[in-house]
This record gives sequence, C-alpha cells and structure tokens, in this order.
Amino acid sequence: MPHHRSAFFISDRTGITAESLGQTLLTQFDTLEFHRETVPFIDTVEKAEALAARIRERAQIDHHKPLVFTSIVNPEIRRVLKIDNALTIDFFETFISELEAELGQNASLTMGKAHGMISEEKYDHRIEAVNFSLNHDDGVKLKDLAEADVVLVGVSRSGKTPTCLYLALQYGIKAANYPLTPEDLDTTSLPKILLPYRSKLFGLTIDPARLHHIRSERRPDSRYASLDNCRFEVNEAESMFRQHAVPFISTTHKSIEEIASTIMHKATLERHF
Amino acid sequence: MPHHRSAFFISDRTGITAESLGQTLLTQFDTLEFHRETVPFIDTVEKAEALAARIRERAQIDHHKPLVFTSIVNPEIRRVLKIDNALTIDFFETFISELEAELGQNASLTMGKAHGMISEEKYDHRIEAVNFSLNHDDGVKLKDLAEADVVLVGVSRSGKTPTCLYLALQYGIKAANYPLTPEDLDTTSLPKILLPYRSKLFGLTIDPARLHHIRSERRPDSRYASLDNCRFEVNEAESMFRQHAVPFISTTHKSIEEIASTIMHKATLERHF
Repeated sequence: MPHHRSAFFISDRTGITAESLGQTLLTQFDTLEFHRETVPFIDTVEKAEALAARIRERAQIDHHKPLVFTSIVNPEIRRVLKIDNALTIDFFETFISELEAELGQNASLTMGKAHGMISEEKYDHRIEAVNFSLNHDDGVKLKDLAEADVVLVGVSRSGKTPTCLYLALQYGIKAANYPLTPEDLDTTSLPKILLPYRSKLFGLTIDPARLHHIRSERRPDSRYASLDNCRFEVNEAESMFRQHAVPFISTTHKSIEEIASTIMHKATLERHF
Repeated sequence: MPHHRSAFFISDRTGITAESLGQTLLTQFDTLEFHRETVPFIDTVEKAEALAARIRERAQIDHHKPLVFTSIVNPEIRRVLKIDNALTIDFFETFISELEAELGQNASLTMGKAHGMISEEKYDHRIEAVNFSLNHDDGVKLKDLAEADVVLVGVSRSGKTPTCLYLALQYGIKAANYPLTPEDLDTTSLPKILLPYRSKLFGLTIDPARLHHIRSERRPDSRYASLDNCRFEVNEAESMFRQHAVPFISTTHKSIEEIASTIMHKATLERHF
C-alpha cells in the first residue's frame, strides 16, 4: 500500500496564505505523495462542520491523519477544525498571541484582509500597472517608456512577457519589455530607442538548449528555433548586456516568481501597493 | 512620538511565503504603522550577519523590537537571525518538527522549492496559459475557445483582463474573456458566439458607481462613462446572467486574488500545476 496522505489548506477567505504556507512545508517531504486540496471561504461554523466531517472521513480512508493547514481568524470556526484524527497546523493561533503581547494590543479579528481589497487607490494602481504592461509588451509604444519602472530586454521567448505581467500583478510595477531582434543583435550597441532609458534596463538571458526547446514548440524546424541560431542570439545578447553594464539574469532554472523577485531585488524596485 | 515599528520579511529565496505570512498577521493590527521590508535571497551566513546588524541598528532607532518573519531552511542561517532585541516569528522551525514527527521522516532541508521551478513541463504549461489569456483577451480569436478552461463575461472595465492573467499565472488556467458590448446588451439573449461554450461562462459584475469612476478616468465626460449608462449596462448584464443561469460575482469590493479564487471555487476549476 502506498503511503497516501491528504493535505487540506483551509482559509476563511482566498486560501492563498494557507496554501503558500502549507506547500512550503510540504516541499520538505518530497518523497511523499500528498492528495492536496485548497478550501477557501470557510467563514461560518456550518461550513466548517461540513468540512470537518469530510476530513474525518478522509482519515478513515487514508489510514493516516490528514494534514490540516489553517489560516482562520474566527476562534469558533477554528475550534470546529481541531480534529482528533488530523494534524492541524494552525498558523493564526500559533503566532497571534506572541504578536499581541509584543505589540501590546489585541488582534482585530477581522477576516481575510491580507488578500482583500485594501483601498480603491491601490487597486487602481495595480490595474494601471497591468494595463501598462499589456500596452508595452513586445516593444510596442516605446515612446512613453519614461513612465516605466523597468524595461526588460531579451531575445524572443526568454520570459519577458510573463515576468512583466507578474511584476504588475504582484508588485504594481510598470514593466515594459523590448525584444532584441536579429537586427539588434548584429552589433553589440544598445538599440538606439533604448538609450534614453539605460538606467531602467534589465536583461533576461536563457540557456540556448532550453530556448531551442521552447522555440521548437512554436515553430518546429525553423531557422528561428535552430540550436545554432539560439546560441548565436543568446551570446550576442549577453555581450551587449556586459558591454553596457545592463544587469541581467538567466531565467533557465527559475520560476516566474523567482525571476520577478530577483529583478525587484537587484534593480532595487519598490512595490507600489 | 508615534508608535513606530519595523517589520522584516526574510527568506532564503523569493520572500513570497514569509511576506504573505507576515502581512496576514500584521493586518490584524491595523491601527499601527509598520515600516515593512522584504529581504529575499538570504542564503549564506555572511548575508544573514550583515542583515542581523541592520536589524539591531533598527531596534535602537525605533526604541521598539523589530518584528522578524523568517522562512529559512538552513538552521545555521536561522540561528544568526535569532536576535535578542527582535521578535522572531520563525515559520519554518515552528512547524517542521511537528510535521517530521507525524510523517515519520526528516525534512529534506532543501531551500526555496515552494516558489522555485518544479519542472519544465509545469513551467511550460503556465506560460502557455498566460499566452492563451493574452491571445484571448477582449473577445479576440473566439474560434478556439474550445481550449479555454473558463470564459469570463462582463461589461467593459469590470475586471476581466487582470483576472484572466492572474488565473493563468497563479493557477495555470486558460482563461479567455468576452466583453459585453452595448449591442449585446440590447437583448438578454446570450451572444450567439458564446452559445457553444455555455458551461464555461462565468460572469463578472460591478457596482455602477464604481464602474462610472473607473471609466471616467479613461474617458471623462463620455456617454460610455456616464452613471446612467453604467447603470443600464450593469443591469442588462446581470439580467442576462440570471436568465441563462450563468454564475456571476461582483468585483466591487474584491481584490484580484479574491475574484480569481472565488471563480476557481465556484466553477470548480482545478489548478494545472
């Protein structure tokens, strides 16, 4: 019988914090298989009771205690989810009293503010950043780059677009991007159009073999996707970055989150909300 | 003297988990002002020592213990960040031993897997979802909606585009969107082009006054932005949703995270990575 475990990520709102917390801990046990379930919006005792019944059932089927990661503000709801036959990691309860003591103040016990709407102004800023990134994708509308917080530069398919969108959504950063074309790569000069924004440039590079793989999915057997061409383009782009002291990182073994947070850090950008 | 506190979110990788955890806890003390700083990539003892010196300095300036939220796997680095003159909330250490005991296994002590690149296949899937959302924004290319996991429907500026992008980035969901035009709203029939995808439709609605505000930023004093027109469009859209049993939610008081996780939940979508 395989070692079968259930893991529940439970929250009174979006479930994002409970999930992020639980997943981080579970990655430390990577030889085990978990049946994972995120359960958001458990905001009444009734919903919690129905869920508790499901967790108890799962314990019986699995012959192992389910792992229950919770981030719930209301103490009554939390109590319902303390299940004998489960291991509960109660993130809120564990830390809140320590903080209350240090801050000399009681927790306000308001639900789900973390990923809720904090203010219309901040929301608007974020949407504006998303729209900016969409409007400045792939070198379009370069004239108003003055407004950009950062301009990502790299060869086609090096990861610029998803990184820009993530920077906008997660940090409210206005991120434009400029794709280095084969013409740009014929010299190691910076493309003229980018010269006024030198201080905002950040380069992305990628392992040529990985680029070859990505481009082949899109245009198999093309010159564009050939390993030789990928090697050439990546080489030229990196020379350009080095020669003009444009900071750059490789996206090859990184997730979008890692690429984005590395850029935030290295370019010392400040989040806008 | 105002009550001035510093809060550090420290991680050996992206800082996303430590920040999400810490921010959630701090929202419970919303009458206090915090000077917040996220410090990612503290992955050596040297970096930790430099940071510890900074935190000690801050304690002196603030005349209050800084709050230090850490998510760090390496025990040596963690030790450096245990600072007498700070309150450390060590998320990893607190829970890991309980989990080790229950799972009968030691933590693998590998850093930063949570937001790292898990597999190229999953990464590719996510990028594909982002590209899908970009290519199916604003009703473009409706012919291959068969591939979509969900199709968001709503009036202009009801929040469709950022929600689609967030669904793609966060959950790997292929989300298309269709804007209801004034012509669509002349009747309560579903637009013909959407009929084959009825089961994938999810409606977004918004408070007319908020819509008026958003549209006014874009096109002040236009008929498009007028409160009367916003009321009319929202009313008609909601009637359409009700008549055809299209599930819908209001985006008015929700963050993008909340809108997206509500859709995941109500449309019972499964994350793709």
